[in-house]
Amino acid sequence: MHRTKVRIVEDALDANNTIAQANRADFDRAGVTVVNFMSAPGAGKTALLESVLGELAGVSVGVLEGDVQGSLDADRLASLHVPVTQLNTDPSFGGECHLDANMVRSALDEIPLAEIDMLVIENVGNLVCPAEFKVGEDVRVMVSSVTEGEDKPLKYPLMFRTCDLVLVNKIDLLPHLDYDLDRFLYNVDQVNPGVLMMLVSARTGEGIDAWRDWLTGVAASAQKERVHA
Amino acid sequence: MHRTKVRIVEDALDANNTIAQANRADFDRAGVTVVNFMSAPGAGKTALLESVLGELAGVSVGVLEGDVQGSLDADRLASLHVPVTQLNTDPSFGGECHLDANMVRSALDEIPLAEIDMLVIENVGNLVCPAEFKVGEDVRVMVSSVTEGEDKPLKYPLMFRTCDLVLVNKIDLLPHLDYDLDRFLYNVDQVNPGVLMMLVSARTGEGIDAWRDWLTGVAASAQKERVHA
Repeated sequence: MHRTKVRIVEDALDANNTIAQANRADFDRAGVTVVNFMSAPGAGKTALLESVLGELAGVSVGVLEGDVQGSLDADRLASLHVPVTQLNTDPSFGGECHLDANMVRSALDEIPLAEIDMLVIENVGNLVCPAEFKVGEDVRVMVSSVTEGEDKPLKYPLMFRTCDLVLVNKIDLLPHLDYDLDRFLYNVDQVNPGVLMMLVSARTGEGIDAWRDWLTGVAASAQKERVHA
Repeated sequence: MHRTKVRIVEDALDANNTIAQANRADFDRAGVTVVNFMSAPGAGKTALLESVLGELAGVSVGVLEGDVQGSLDADRLASLHVPVTQLNTDPSFGGECHLDANMVRSALDEIPLAEIDMLVIENVGNLVCPAEFKVGEDVRVMVSSVTEGEDKPLKYPLMFRTCDLVLVNKIDLLPHLDYDLDRFLYNVDQVNPGVLMMLVSARTGEGIDAWRDWLTGVAASAQKERVHA
């Protein structure tokens, strides 16, 4: 019984990977760099996009917004005058807790791929399943808010292990928390040795320049690779 | 294609409900009141249990601890000298993002049901799937931290709609946040009109007496119902 269940999960992930590769091929053809942007609910993904997307030098960016229900985040980002596509995951009972490659594929016709250099996919707020499903991204960025505690890398290791950048957000609140930042950084390093981490605050702007530069750099280096390919 | 997918989800939930009823029957036979305790990662579930479980007047309590990986929370709660059973959801790739009725059933033999009056099931940190899967509980309690923002009830409506009590945690941080508490309470009321809400801080102890009294009351009234049944 248990073996069967595991095999079904593997089959589902296998099908997902096939579709993710098809997405990847479409993104490559269009010359679009794709960022899978993930976190727990309320860690500050949308705020961290609001703080940089309007000012990416030389990079035209679009956003695919994944939510169980509603378009609150898409509405916030639309004011930055970047193209935003909304994807809701609630066709069934409580909604899907993540985006998968097929959901992203179903939205491709709505995304102006020819007009953008970079697509940021804001995933559903969840530290488990979004990490399991590739959607065709070049890089994965996750946000971990200091209000969530130091233990999260040990409790949700796959998310921390598979990302290329960890944004440690809300550091303006550190003086008001019993939070051991060194312990958190150590825990991240345990599950993803050497991964890049940035201390940021979407509220005060601290660290936001580095985040913006990193995102611009990712778009530029992907562009370069495609030219040389 | 889409219809098929929805039907599979419904079948899975149907099987889950059948097992949840079997769990419920076992809990009733043992005279145990069950609380399904849910939140996003890092909202403060374990801290809110630490603050009350050692002092529930006349109620013997046990905990079933659900985590993707590790036993950090179980280790914290064990120091309160209450029986804690650990359930890890990571037999496959990234782990399950919720507890379901069958997982809880698989742990029943490990829980000293004859010795306790109340079982608190600390679910996996996630605002989507835990709300979809009944596990045989009497009541559902969710924690929403003020650091997560006011919009969460609108983005994760099923979780807020199906709970009996919303603990609004970390209110000691309110002076340091751009958070509109009235807007949050209004949003909760939109999806679950009249639901009980308590403002608490596990850190300062504010509101903890009310939370402890509510939990004691739930155990007492369930006991009374069973006596009269």
